[in-house]
Amino acid sequence: MAVYTEVTDEALTAFLGLYDIGALRAYRGIAEGVENSNYALKTSAGDFILTLYEKRVNPEDLPWFLGLMEHLAAQGLSCPLPVRARDGRNLNPLAGKIAAITTFLPGIWPRRVLIEHCEKLGAALAQLHQAGQGFAPTRRNGLGPDGWAPLLQKCLPQADQVLAGLGAELTAWLAQITAAWPQGLPVGHIHADLFPDNVFFLDGKISGLIDFYFACTDIYAYDVAVCLNAWCFERDFSFNATKSRALLRGYTAHRPLSGAEMAALPVLAQGAALRFLLTRLYDWLNTPEGAMVTPKDPLDYYRRLRFHLAAKDASAYGV
Amino acid sequence: MAVYTEVTDEALTAFLGLYDIGALRAYRGIAEGVENSNYALKTSAGDFILTLYEKRVNPEDLPWFLGLMEHLAAQGLSCPLPVRARDGRNLNPLAGKIAAITTFLPGIWPRRVLIEHCEKLGAALAQLHQAGQGFAPTRRNGLGPDGWAPLLQKCLPQADQVLAGLGAELTAWLAQITAAWPQGLPVGHIHADLFPDNVFFLDGKISGLIDFYFACTDIYAYDVAVCLNAWCFERDFSFNATKSRALLRGYTAHRPLSGAEMAALPVLAQGAALRFLLTRLYDWLNTPEGAMVTPKDPLDYYRRLRFHLAAKDASAYGV
Repeated sequence: MAVYTEVTDEALTAFLGLYDIGALRAYRGIAEGVENSNYALKTSAGDFILTLYEKRVNPEDLPWFLGLMEHLAAQGLSCPLPVRARDGRNLNPLAGKIAAITTFLPGIWPRRVLIEHCEKLGAALAQLHQAGQGFAPTRRNGLGPDGWAPLLQKCLPQADQVLAGLGAELTAWLAQITAAWPQGLPVGHIHADLFPDNVFFLDGKISGLIDFYFACTDIYAYDVAVCLNAWCFERDFSFNATKSRALLRGYTAHRPLSGAEMAALPVLAQGAALRFLLTRLYDWLNTPEGAMVTPKDPLDYYRRLRFHLAAKDASAYGV
Repeated sequence: MAVYTEVTDEALTAFLGLYDIGALRAYRGIAEGVENSNYALKTSAGDFILTLYEKRVNPEDLPWFLGLMEHLAAQGLSCPLPVRARDGRNLNPLAGKIAAITTFLPGIWPRRVLIEHCEKLGAALAQLHQAGQGFAPTRRNGLGPDGWAPLLQKCLPQADQVLAGLGAELTAWLAQITAAWPQGLPVGHIHADLFPDNVFFLDGKISGLIDFYFACTDIYAYDVAVCLNAWCFERDFSFNATKSRALLRGYTAHRPLSGAEMAALPVLAQGAALRFLLTRLYDWLNTPEGAMVTPKDPLDYYRRLRFHLAAKDASAYGV
């Protein structure tokens, strides 16, 4: 839940004057998302989302993110479409930040993930990968294998406060996973953060994918591995292979996975779990008291990582 | 900012089945309000607000609050209208809490209060007082003079951690203010918390008053005194008598204040400042680490209270 930047009505009215989307009727901060400030915006022309980009997003990456969203929407994928101001810009200053307006997507993200959600999610992920193929610019994954060691270094001095021995375990696992990291798998634009709260459903279908601010150019099957982590564990951290089978069935119906991609699923899932474990650990150790966002427990991903470390091959994922 | 209770889509869909307001299209937690969980709800019939009442609200008071809102709306006041389910109930269980759906009010609360806001606010407050007159049930003000001493007792052991000598000052001021508390002034239903974030403006007019969960039956002029505190201080805590003059001009145009009410403004404003100082102090001392709500600085009201203690008569407020 997050609204970090307070926007005055005068500033917002002036900002909206740059756009052709009618007069302001209401705006309310949205208590979702942890990276940026989001407002539900209502104008005489309809509903929109106003996003102010906070410090964790590199402003230089914003044109790439918005360009990708525009490209995906043009390909028929249901994702937020950045609205352009009269002068053609889709990024403009507001309240000392850079801000964008996007279209509002109806739908509800699943608080309780069911098997049918997983199959549809898999299909949508494959469609996202295919829809991105015509978008030429690339973006390096800053939270890929190269990014893990620097993150771990920052956490090591305090890691054992979270769990005895955690620092040593993470050091060993990071070396093991990066040494085994697959080379030569198909690469393209991936979402890299497609958790349930970024996927809206309506009337039993996916109505939209949101929050492309970790998107990057990386191994497609890594995006599948992120989703295995995000969608297929139960609340007690047991892995539900029926859900992963459904997710993979949905994905491969639109984009088949090669033998090499399938064989790499365990190490990719280990890497994905390590990535979320490290960023959560960093946030856990560095969130100031009284912050508006409650950090998520990093050990949720410690448990997931241990599952993937025990996975011998793709059969652990129900295939 | 607050969403304390997470509502699953299944639970919400079942809950909406009790009402005749169409099918669920979207819901997002709203990052405003600190007492209850609020969701912006979109159905095929339009926009609504879903409120889940959290522990600070006494469930026994809810029928009174909703009854008052229904009465005020029927009198033409623009406030959220509770929506009744098919069986006539306007309160129903959801996610282990009691919940209500109300109509959505367009408009924007002023982040920067201008003089014209104050005059319109004064007029709306008087209209609220008049509109409430036909509503027979009453509700005691739990945060009136009787409620201050118990609150102070809970804060005293730690009060001096916030400011050296604060405990002794508050003890003395509480005795002084309650001893001087006026008797026999006109009483009726008051909002008791009409801060700028509870007042929406649209096209230069007030479009709605919200958040009636501190409403009670108490001295009308005390409600004016709450607004003097909430609307007429600048960010540096200097008092802006032009704003208070505008507020009182707007109020008295619709409901004249008697000589006794005018004379009581300083002590009523002292009491109002003390009430917010005490509840903020309590929250400041009792908010657990990692809470989703950042407590507001109680000393903001210490500064306001000192201004009102120095006020000799209503001339301090520009009249």
